[in-house]
Amino acid sequence: MIQTPYLLFLGDAPDMLAAKVAIGIRDWRPDNAVGQFRMDGCKADLGLTDMSLAEAKAAGAKTLVIGVANRGGVISQAWKKVLVEALEEGFDLASGLHNLLRDEEDLAAVARATGRTLHDVRVPSVKFPIANGEKRTGKRCLAVGTDCSVGKMYTAMAMDAEMRQRGMKSTFRATGQTGILITGDGIPLDAVVADFMAGSVEWLSPDNDPDHWDLLEGQGSLFHVSYSGVTMALIHGGQPDALILCHEPTREHMRGLPGYTPPSLETLRDTALPLARVANPECEVIAISVNTQHMDEAEARAYCAETAARMGLPTTDPYRFGAGALVDALAAQ
Amino acid sequence: MIQTPYLLFLGDAPDMLAAKVAIGIRDWRPDNAVGQFRMDGCKADLGLTDMSLAEAKAAGAKTLVIGVANRGGVISQAWKKVLVEALEEGFDLASGLHNLLRDEEDLAAVARATGRTLHDVRVPSVKFPIANGEKRTGKRCLAVGTDCSVGKMYTAMAMDAEMRQRGMKSTFRATGQTGILITGDGIPLDAVVADFMAGSVEWLSPDNDPDHWDLLEGQGSLFHVSYSGVTMALIHGGQPDALILCHEPTREHMRGLPGYTPPSLETLRDTALPLARVANPECEVIAISVNTQHMDEAEARAYCAETAARMGLPTTDPYRFGAGALVDALAAQ
Repeated sequence: MIQTPYLLFLGDAPDMLAAKVAIGIRDWRPDNAVGQFRMDGCKADLGLTDMSLAEAKAAGAKTLVIGVANRGGVISQAWKKVLVEALEEGFDLASGLHNLLRDEEDLAAVARATGRTLHDVRVPSVKFPIANGEKRTGKRCLAVGTDCSVGKMYTAMAMDAEMRQRGMKSTFRATGQTGILITGDGIPLDAVVADFMAGSVEWLSPDNDPDHWDLLEGQGSLFHVSYSGVTMALIHGGQPDALILCHEPTREHMRGLPGYTPPSLETLRDTALPLARVANPECEVIAISVNTQHMDEAEARAYCAETAARMGLPTTDPYRFGAGALVDALAAQ
Repeated sequence: MIQTPYLLFLGDAPDMLAAKVAIGIRDWRPDNAVGQFRMDGCKADLGLTDMSLAEAKAAGAKTLVIGVANRGGVISQAWKKVLVEALEEGFDLASGLHNLLRDEEDLAAVARATGRTLHDVRVPSVKFPIANGEKRTGKRCLAVGTDCSVGKMYTAMAMDAEMRQRGMKSTFRATGQTGILITGDGIPLDAVVADFMAGSVEWLSPDNDPDHWDLLEGQGSLFHVSYSGVTMALIHGGQPDALILCHEPTREHMRGLPGYTPPSLETLRDTALPLARVANPECEVIAISVNTQHMDEAEARAYCAETAARMGLPTTDPYRFGAGALVDALAAQ
């Protein structure tokens, strides 16, 4: 568990795209961010207060989060001066980069000397059990996609925000590094050893109140041959009560797999639901979330309406039109 | 890759059951075993020549394989004297135990000093790629089960033996520690990090002759919630041309999961085949392998005949009746 609130480190980000993690924190957990730290030449700006380390410390920040991705996931030498100083000022550090903070000798040495913690959220920090398949109390919702990167995390985040606003009991459960940094907690499922994948999801989503919903962050796709095993473990370890189908209609082939065509929403439904019912016979597909970023608004509305009629399920783009329709469907479960 | 042939170390095995790995080597790769090494009190006997380390060395043995499982997977102190002596005599050591040879300080030190290799086959020794899903040449057969431990490895081993006898081109591809020790090569799939599971299977089964069959060792079951992700990765990384359905008809619940009922062979077929066709549209279910160990011979024959008629597929128990019918089905592909 990463201590909040954060100071968001944007380093020398070449553009806003590189600051994806920081943007996610600002958008989804604004209370977690007291301000932003930018180095000379930084081209990203979240619109938060620019703070020095001392100012952020005075404002209550506990952890400096690396909210920027370098090409290659490297921890740049240009950042080191700030990171070392942050440790010495009493901040923990958190990063989702491929290269680990703990593998940088200088950072590791200063962290030891100052008693601070280095959080590398790509690496599991827990010894997970093997899944036991026992029914847990409380309810669970999982977004499954026709492909990777179709908006599964966004869908769960937007539903969680809407549910909190309505006073419903919900928790977003992060299963990837961005989600972990945003919320301060979760499991890096793609880095868990095969035998323990489903068990790590059970661990992430324990017994809860009967009217509480865990919104599990989806990963991969049953139809993406590189990562389908991770998706399968999430479906069985998560034992969802509700599935939401996620789709990006303009994609011509599976992400990174030129020879593979994305399945239809019908095929996704007919594949995912029987598999989910192995772990939870009560599971239902309740709604469809469409990523319409490559359509204009009229196209997007027409696509959603046509899909809703064809599939007989509430259908929306939560980014464009809000997550209300998805939460209505969940509340009706 | 483990150097063959082996001397099979049976230690102080309390019974034959504890020598499962050694029995597998003797049965499936008899040329890999020059003899057995038994300590005082050993209750297992493979019927191989009892040899001292020096005798085995003279007979050409390169590796001492720990062919016995202790309760808890421990490397017993009583074994250490022999293991250290083996290293000093020039043997490598190989083990599939949970506790690793490399974590035993004395063994690690002697291995370093003597330049010998410690093979812990539960731990991946390769940095695997992420799966790219590209079509590979050659053919692949995968056994999928209604549950774990229904005879998937045995089925593949028996088919491989039958195919060699017929002069067909085949390779058994081990995906678990027993298979790796038997053949000297393979991947410990359940110990691979999630993101690389399917990639490790692609790595295991590369391009081959058009008429060559890889017999991939199955793992887990799509219906076993603890391990289904591993099975999924094997189906997509393996891109099988042929599936064989494996079943143990008397099992009342899924192994280790009292609340879960095994699926029917029909459900297994209808679930596994569409998923396999994501990676290989040409895939077919070609035969059924039944584990009839809890039936008498008349029952077993009746069950196979009834199943063959119902499913329209060749059906046999390869342990009891030979793998001929399964290989006939493969040859007809």
